[in-house]
Amino acid sequence: MCIKIAILGLGTVGYGVYDIINKVPLLQNIKVVKILDKDFSKQELVNNIITDNYDDIINDKSISIVVETMGAGNFSYQCIKKALLASKHVVTANKEVVASHIEELTEIKSQKGVSFYYEASVGGGIPIIKQTHVASIVNQISEIKGILNGTTNYILSKMTNEKLPFANALKLAQEAGFAEADPTADLEGLDMVRKISILSDIAYQTNINIDKVWHFGIKNVSDIDITYADNLGYAIKFVASSSLVGENISISVEPKFVSKDSIIAKTSNEFNVVEIKCDYNDDLLFYGKGAGRYPTANAIVNDIIMIVNNDMNYTFKNRNTYRINELEESGKYYLRVKDKSLVEDKLIDKAIDNQILTKEVSFEEIKKQMENIIFYAKVVM
Amino acid sequence: MCIKIAILGLGTVGYGVYDIINKVPLLQNIKVVKILDKDFSKQELVNNIITDNYDDIINDKSISIVVETMGAGNFSYQCIKKALLASKHVVTANKEVVASHIEELTEIKSQKGVSFYYEASVGGGIPIIKQTHVASIVNQISEIKGILNGTTNYILSKMTNEKLPFANALKLAQEAGFAEADPTADLEGLDMVRKISILSDIAYQTNINIDKVWHFGIKNVSDIDITYADNLGYAIKFVASSSLVGENISISVEPKFVSKDSIIAKTSNEFNVVEIKCDYNDDLLFYGKGAGRYPTANAIVNDIIMIVNNDMNYTFKNRNTYRINELEESGKYYLRVKDKSLVEDKLIDKAIDNQILTKEVSFEEIKKQMENIIFYAKVVM
Repeated sequence: MCIKIAILGLGTVGYGVYDIINKVPLLQNIKVVKILDKDFSKQELVNNIITDNYDDIINDKSISIVVETMGAGNFSYQCIKKALLASKHVVTANKEVVASHIEELTEIKSQKGVSFYYEASVGGGIPIIKQTHVASIVNQISEIKGILNGTTNYILSKMTNEKLPFANALKLAQEAGFAEADPTADLEGLDMVRKISILSDIAYQTNINIDKVWHFGIKNVSDIDITYADNLGYAIKFVASSSLVGENISISVEPKFVSKDSIIAKTSNEFNVVEIKCDYNDDLLFYGKGAGRYPTANAIVNDIIMIVNNDMNYTFKNRNTYRINELEESGKYYLRVKDKSLVEDKLIDKAIDNQILTKEVSFEEIKKQMENIIFYAKVVM
Repeated sequence: MCIKIAILGLGTVGYGVYDIINKVPLLQNIKVVKILDKDFSKQELVNNIITDNYDDIINDKSISIVVETMGAGNFSYQCIKKALLASKHVVTANKEVVASHIEELTEIKSQKGVSFYYEASVGGGIPIIKQTHVASIVNQISEIKGILNGTTNYILSKMTNEKLPFANALKLAQEAGFAEADPTADLEGLDMVRKISILSDIAYQTNINIDKVWHFGIKNVSDIDITYADNLGYAIKFVASSSLVGENISISVEPKFVSKDSIIAKTSNEFNVVEIKCDYNDDLLFYGKGAGRYPTANAIVNDIIMIVNNDMNYTFKNRNTYRINELEESGKYYLRVKDKSLVEDKLIDKAIDNQILTKEVSFEEIKKQMENIIFYAKVVM
């Protein structure tokens, strides 16, 4: 039996998927028959199967799987929805669409009796979506944390290990192909907000409103922050984390001071790491490349294989309606402020110029200072 | 539809499986109906479903899944084989049986059209078997390495971090329930030989003869070895590794000097870690508890869920017949010898008393010294 699939978008990842399917002998019964793209100059590369008309794909009854690799945007969302409504299985790498529409799309795929998989949307080649789904069946997951963005981790690693200034590290990341021309979504943490929201949706069987996720970026991080952390035995890492206590979820994306000895501190450059805490299964940690043509394409192909093998279809037991906490944690913080005189003495443990290490304080206190704060990192471990 | 299962052995792991199945609401359609054990004093604990006659289970047509948690031994092997021959699905945690009989048992399960899963046989709660199977479909895996034995890692961690002598560290491991009363299989590396062989079978789609796997244990490791390593910036870890180059497999279980900065060095106490190198998917690393009632039972329950959901059935493309190399690697070695005068000067980089750091030498040279060697560790990054 031959399984026919269509790929939407012949970019880096889309071509990776095409390439793997055509090269791996064990995938002989899977055939890419149409590709949606506007660039007809790539026709020769793919045996003339490019079309710019999505209806060619939707109306082709022989196509059972649609693979979406076009990236952000309403058009991607519309294409995925149309494919599911046309009773086609969908595999996507699109974290924006999954983070915002997972509930609706899961509802449609269940009604239509097809599969909707999105392993490549979080953690590139790391099989974290599947593992979170599997773990959530038996376990109550209580915490997820990790580094889910390669660009910012690459920048912080270069600043830490090679003493590069921020601007040079960013440029290197762009030259290496990790950072987008407009790196705002990465630097402000929006990319990780989407990813930690998807993982939390699965882990807690709920539906996170991404607009409610606290995030503070690293665009103001400077070598003096890195040095300050280093002198105290810490590394600065840009960390996504969420935890469930009772009916309340705490979820955030923010810079953290982590012990130099921790595995999270040892996660360098474009690597990602995710830890999940489960009741029966204890802690699990997954580590690997979070992006790149082949790791991402490999994740997509694994999703396709799950469909072909008729594997477990992700379902949600019943959607829990948990409350997302205002971040109410307390802890020690590193602050670099515009005006030190605006910070009350009772909050300060140590200070050098405008760099402050606070005592144990509530996040409330930090929030009050937000206008005055150029960069902060929570001290953990 | 109710799925009926039998558990063989009501020990630590067997009871964990029983407990999870009865406690987790989502597993309501799975029912443990018989348990094979000789200890009838446990009847009340499990609603009087214990039998000591395996025929009661084999002949019960309503039982579709047999879960084996009895541990080593020919009886376990016979029970698994009988269950598969009776067209029952089998889930086992038994690394001895899987390492020695994977080919025969996979052959039988394929003939009978049932499933044979063994996630809990390697890495406890870490889903490494499944991931290796999944990765092997698309990728050529070229290397696997890691720490796959909690007992010996616990001992080395206590010796390193708390400066305990070997005997005390072993005693602590036994008190904590990690080490067996007879810890020989762990200390000599036989346990890791079985586990790395199972992973290699899957990764390279071959069949490793466990008798051909080089192993050198840690029963002679001493605090002076730990200190020597520490002074050079290394930690001593007991590492299983295998790699495939062309048609040749190099596979070993031996102590290694690893950089204190590496993730493998940061893997402490009873934790396990596994790294796999893939062509498309790059490096992947999995980390978690390698043993314990609930992590292991959780892995078994996940296998049961795969059967219930009719998930991917592990198959082997076609068994590759690779050659297992005599270890022919070269490298630097740390040696502690009985008689230093027996080691040729040209091999020695540094020496203090009977502790030697060699120059880059072939493993052949080390093997010649084996009678003279009390403890050795290969120096790796």
